[in-house]
Amino acid sequence: MKYFIDNLIEKIEEKNSRICVGLDPHLNLMPASVLDSALLKNPQENQKEIAEAILYFNKEIIEATAEHTAVVKPQMAFYEKLGTAGMETLWKTINYAWQKGLLVLLDGKRNDIGSTAKAYAEAYLHVDSGADSLTINPYLGRDGITPFLEDKTKGAFALLKTSNPSSADIQDLKLNNGKKVYEAVALFLAKIAEDYLGKTGYSNLAAVVGATYPKELAEIRALIPSIFFLIPGYGAQGGGAKDVKAAFDKQGRGAVINSSRGINFAYRKEEYKDLAPQNFGKAAALAAKKMKNDINSVLDL
Amino acid sequence: MKYFIDNLIEKIEEKNSRICVGLDPHLNLMPASVLDSALLKNPQENQKEIAEAILYFNKEIIEATAEHTAVVKPQMAFYEKLGTAGMETLWKTINYAWQKGLLVLLDGKRNDIGSTAKAYAEAYLHVDSGADSLTINPYLGRDGITPFLEDKTKGAFALLKTSNPSSADIQDLKLNNGKKVYEAVALFLAKIAEDYLGKTGYSNLAAVVGATYPKELAEIRALIPSIFFLIPGYGAQGGGAKDVKAAFDKQGRGAVINSSRGINFAYRKEEYKDLAPQNFGKAAALAAKKMKNDINSVLDL
Repeated sequence: MKYFIDNLIEKIEEKNSRICVGLDPHLNLMPASVLDSALLKNPQENQKEIAEAILYFNKEIIEATAEHTAVVKPQMAFYEKLGTAGMETLWKTINYAWQKGLLVLLDGKRNDIGSTAKAYAEAYLHVDSGADSLTINPYLGRDGITPFLEDKTKGAFALLKTSNPSSADIQDLKLNNGKKVYEAVALFLAKIAEDYLGKTGYSNLAAVVGATYPKELAEIRALIPSIFFLIPGYGAQGGGAKDVKAAFDKQGRGAVINSSRGINFAYRKEEYKDLAPQNFGKAAALAAKKMKNDINSVLDL
Repeated sequence: MKYFIDNLIEKIEEKNSRICVGLDPHLNLMPASVLDSALLKNPQENQKEIAEAILYFNKEIIEATAEHTAVVKPQMAFYEKLGTAGMETLWKTINYAWQKGLLVLLDGKRNDIGSTAKAYAEAYLHVDSGADSLTINPYLGRDGITPFLEDKTKGAFALLKTSNPSSADIQDLKLNNGKKVYEAVALFLAKIAEDYLGKTGYSNLAAVVGATYPKELAEIRALIPSIFFLIPGYGAQGGGAKDVKAAFDKQGRGAVINSSRGINFAYRKEEYKDLAPQNFGKAAALAAKKMKNDINSVLDL
C-alpha cells in the first residue's frame, strides 16, 4: 500500500512539476463557445445545462494541462452551487482527471467531529470512489482531523495560514508564549502528522499555507519540516515564485503551488490574446507550462 | 423584510420551545421497519434505497416533533455520504420541514473566502430555495463570514466554542492579553454581528457554543449579549438543562439547544421501551416534549 503523500511526491517528480491546477469554474469568466450566457439569466433553472458546460470546460483544461501538473483541485463550492447536477459534474471531473493519471485534491474545507467527520471522509475519501485528498479546517481540534486520515492511501490538507487579506483576524492572534495562533496550529498539526508519515518523510496530513504571506510561509516551513504544503495565492492573489521558494526542501520537495483563474482563464490574458477564446485549453497549457517553469527556476535542482 | 433572527425568535416563542431537532440519520440506529439492514452491506450500491428510507424517517420525525420545535438541523455529512441521492433527500427534507412551518438550520460548517464563500451561500442560502441558515467555520476571518450574511432573511451560525473533547486544542489556547482564543473569536464575531442586528437586538450572525462547557458558555454569554447561540452537546454528550441556563436572557431568549440522537432514536431508550420500534415517531415526540419542558423549567419565565 502506497501512502497518499508518497504517491503525490512521486507524481510530482515524474512530471517535474510543482503546480496544482485549481478547477474553479467561475461562470462569468467562461468562453462564450462553452457557456451560453443566456443560461446565466436564470441559473437555478438551467443547472443541468450549466453543469454540462462546466464538465466540457474541465475536461479540456485537464486534457490540456495534464502534461504539466500532477494534481488538480476542484473547488467544491462552485459545484455545490449547481445542486445535484453540479455534484455529478464534480464526480465526472474527478474520474476524468484519474483517466489522465492525475491525483485529485478536493477543496471542500470540511470539518466536524467523530462520526460526522467520518461521514465526510466516507463521502469524499471513500476507498473505491472518493478523491485522493480533501482540504479540512482544523478549528475543532484533533477530533476533527484524525477521522480524515484513517485510510493511508488518502490525504488531508488542513488550513493553517490562509492567503486571504483577513486571515490575520484569528490566525495571527498573539499567544502568551510569544507565538501566534497559526504557529500553534502548525505545531499541533505536526504532532498529529507524526502518525501518518510516508517513506518520503512527509505526512498524509498536509497543510494549506498562502503564498501571500512569504515571511510566515518561511517561518512555518522551518517549524514543521515534515508537513507538505498546498500553497494558494500565486498569481491572481499576488504571490510569485520567489515568495514560495522557502516551502521546498533541497530535493525540491515539500509543496505544490496552486493556480486556478490564472490557468483556467488564461485565454483572457493579454499575453495569450492571439489565441481565439475557443482555444482556452491551449492558453491554459501555455500558462501551466510557464508557471511550472517559473517555480522550478527558483529551486536549486 | 423580516430578519432571520427575528423570525427564529418569533417561532420559538410561538412554540414556547427552545430546542432544535437535529436530523442526523445514523444508519445503524434506524428501525428495521424503516431501513433493511441488508442494504448496508453494500451502501455505495444502495445509495438510492437508503436515501429514500432516510427521507421517510425524517418526515416521520418532523411530523411527530413539529409541535415541540421551531427549527430542525440536518447534519449535511450524513446526506453528502449518500451522493446525489442523499442530497435529494436533504432538499426534500428541508421542503417538508417548511411545509410543517419549521425553520431549517443546515449544519454544513462551510468556510471559504470571497467569491467561493459567496458560492456556498448561493448553494445553501439561496433566496428562493435555500435553507434559512447555515453553520460556518470562522477560522478564515471576516472574509469568510460576511458573504454568508448578505441576505438579511438568512442567518449564519459560526463555530465558537465547540462541544467536543478536543475543542480545547485550538479554541482554548491562551492569548497574550490573558484571554483565550474562543473569547477573542467571540469578540471578533460580535463586532461583525453589529451590522446584522434584528429588531429583537440579536444578530443574524449567531454562534455555536457547546453545552459540555457550561463555565465557558456563561462567560461567552456575558461577553457577547447580542449573539444568539446554537448549543449542541445536550443529552448524549453530557450537558443538562442547568448547564445551558446561562445562555438565555430574562425573556428566555438567546439560544436553541440541539438534540439529535436523543430525539431521532428515542425509541431505543429504556424509558420508551413500551413503544414498538415502528413507533419511533411517537418516542421522538415524547422525547422532544420532555426536552422542551426540561429547558423551560430552568428559565425564569
